[in-house]
Amino acid sequence: MSYTLKDIAKQANVSITAVSLVLNDKPCRISDEKKELIKQIAKENNYTPNINARSLVTKETKTFGLIIPDIENIFFSRLTKSIESYCRQAGYTLIIVNSNDEYEQDLYLIDLLLSRGIDGLFITFSTSAYKHEEELCAKLSELTIPYVLIDRFFNDFDCNKVYFDNTLGAYLATKYLIEQGHKRISCVVHSINSHSLAFRFDGYKKAMQEYGLEIKDDYIIKGNYHIESGYDAGDIIMRNNTTAVFVANDMMTLGLLKRLKEEGVRVPEDLSIVSYDNTLNDFIITLQLTSIEQNIANLGKKASDVMINLVQNKQSDFANICLEPKLVINNSVRNIVY
Amino acid sequence: MSYTLKDIAKQANVSITAVSLVLNDKPCRISDEKKELIKQIAKENNYTPNINARSLVTKETKTFGLIIPDIENIFFSRLTKSIESYCRQAGYTLIIVNSNDEYEQDLYLIDLLLSRGIDGLFITFSTSAYKHEEELCAKLSELTIPYVLIDRFFNDFDCNKVYFDNTLGAYLATKYLIEQGHKRISCVVHSINSHSLAFRFDGYKKAMQEYGLEIKDDYIIKGNYHIESGYDAGDIIMRNNTTAVFVANDMMTLGLLKRLKEEGVRVPEDLSIVSYDNTLNDFIITLQLTSIEQNIANLGKKASDVMINLVQNKQSDFANICLEPKLVINNSVRNIVY
Repeated sequence: MSYTLKDIAKQANVSITAVSLVLNDKPCRISDEKKELIKQIAKENNYTPNINARSLVTKETKTFGLIIPDIENIFFSRLTKSIESYCRQAGYTLIIVNSNDEYEQDLYLIDLLLSRGIDGLFITFSTSAYKHEEELCAKLSELTIPYVLIDRFFNDFDCNKVYFDNTLGAYLATKYLIEQGHKRISCVVHSINSHSLAFRFDGYKKAMQEYGLEIKDDYIIKGNYHIESGYDAGDIIMRNNTTAVFVANDMMTLGLLKRLKEEGVRVPEDLSIVSYDNTLNDFIITLQLTSIEQNIANLGKKASDVMINLVQNKQSDFANICLEPKLVINNSVRNIVY
Repeated sequence: MSYTLKDIAKQANVSITAVSLVLNDKPCRISDEKKELIKQIAKENNYTPNINARSLVTKETKTFGLIIPDIENIFFSRLTKSIESYCRQAGYTLIIVNSNDEYEQDLYLIDLLLSRGIDGLFITFSTSAYKHEEELCAKLSELTIPYVLIDRFFNDFDCNKVYFDNTLGAYLATKYLIEQGHKRISCVVHSINSHSLAFRFDGYKKAMQEYGLEIKDDYIIKGNYHIESGYDAGDIIMRNNTTAVFVANDMMTLGLLKRLKEEGVRVPEDLSIVSYDNTLNDFIITLQLTSIEQNIANLGKKASDVMINLVQNKQSDFANICLEPKLVINNSVRNIVY
């Protein structure tokens, strides 16, 4: 049995990508000492490169890869559709893989896509990747093809990225409630206090502080972006004496509306709501929600533009594109300015 | 420049897959005459097989491919999630591609996935493929890896397939309306009169005929499964003097509900509705729809089971699995039995 890249990687305690880069003399962030070790192991074991793998790496495939956390989530399925459509127009086929929001899968799928031959990689990494920032950044740094991070990124890691301004979105939502006369305002936000997931709480806080409004402890309700957590939030909101709530995603708003209906709480007469995503108004017949809208098609377009420029060598600096969400005003907020 | 499989295919006027099969002496449905021609062209042009492609075809990759028409459609994104999940459990990675519901893409993407190395192929082909039955069946017949058709298939083409009984679903929906006392019943169905898309109209017709009820011309309303066509159907239903309607998918029901609300028509007091898909009850707050439910997760599981049996050589005959939908009773139908 022949000795493979994987065997070398294991023995040298580095990634397969690292071994590939070193043996092909490509630029990478690996110490000279480690490089020497890798070459030595390869030599000692009579390693011969797999012609397959090498050929697939060097030739143009007119294909991009996309790693997303959850294809069933409407945000990601719309994003996928948009990227697929723009890349298709530019003559590229998109291969999609689903990480199941698992960090280990992010790493595995990067290698899988590389081994199948892609010209570029789009990735929205899993939420758990935030706990493995160093490892993932090292992996990405070693890539010899262009890659673009979408929607999620690490603050201190320079690379190509396209995302929405989540702080701004939450700020606009909360500010609108304040301008309509509300002073006691709850928020339902994600319970993970890190990176982009925390930005929406930051925006709420910024608006409240700007207007000198108090944020009591029980105004802050933690959820997980699923319907059930919005439903549960309803019980707290009905007891915390607030007149309005900013909900950080549409799924939680759906759950909240169910709970409120059960208790006969009317929107907006008894409680005002601003939601986030603006994906529900096709579905809810009785009410039109005021919400923060993110132009997902545009996110996909911008990411595709960046990638196509990269593979055509039309871009030298890292692209850092922050898209602005906007407030869409409907009838879920009551004006209580006297 | 070397002569490729593609060049031979072009000159012999056959598919690349056909050339590959013939030159590798694999079984295929190609005439001996054509086989001879292909070998002759290869010889004359000193064709040497690409080691890459051959290696990728013969070795196990632990990867399956999936071709779907529209990743943004909730039916397909749920199906994808289910297949991905079951294959993952069995140790296979799923590579997903989106055909944009275009027949030409079905053909192109089959070749693309083959060239990247997959052990098996899942496919839900585009609606336009029904107009190219012969060509697509020929293409599928030539495949040397297992494939499973999901949800859509050709009646006369023997292969592995997993799908729902659409005639039964529509029959159950219509029968329920009749049993609640309705005699004048509209249907909103897909306008394409072919194959699986027509089965839901067949089921409606079967129930109406079984109970000796008349189907007037204006009871049959054609739509395209999108919201707008359901909205437009509302105008016809308000004029055709029916007391109930069977709507063949949830998106059209959403549109219909919007139109009815605008005109003050109440459900179920003024009009009874049975829908299809049962995906809306998380979204609609004021009403719970009686609907036909298809267990999408189970569709994905069955398709995955078939594929895994195929690649493990545990199955010799073609699998032909027809899944039964079921009626979920809620409060969108009024009982008018006296």
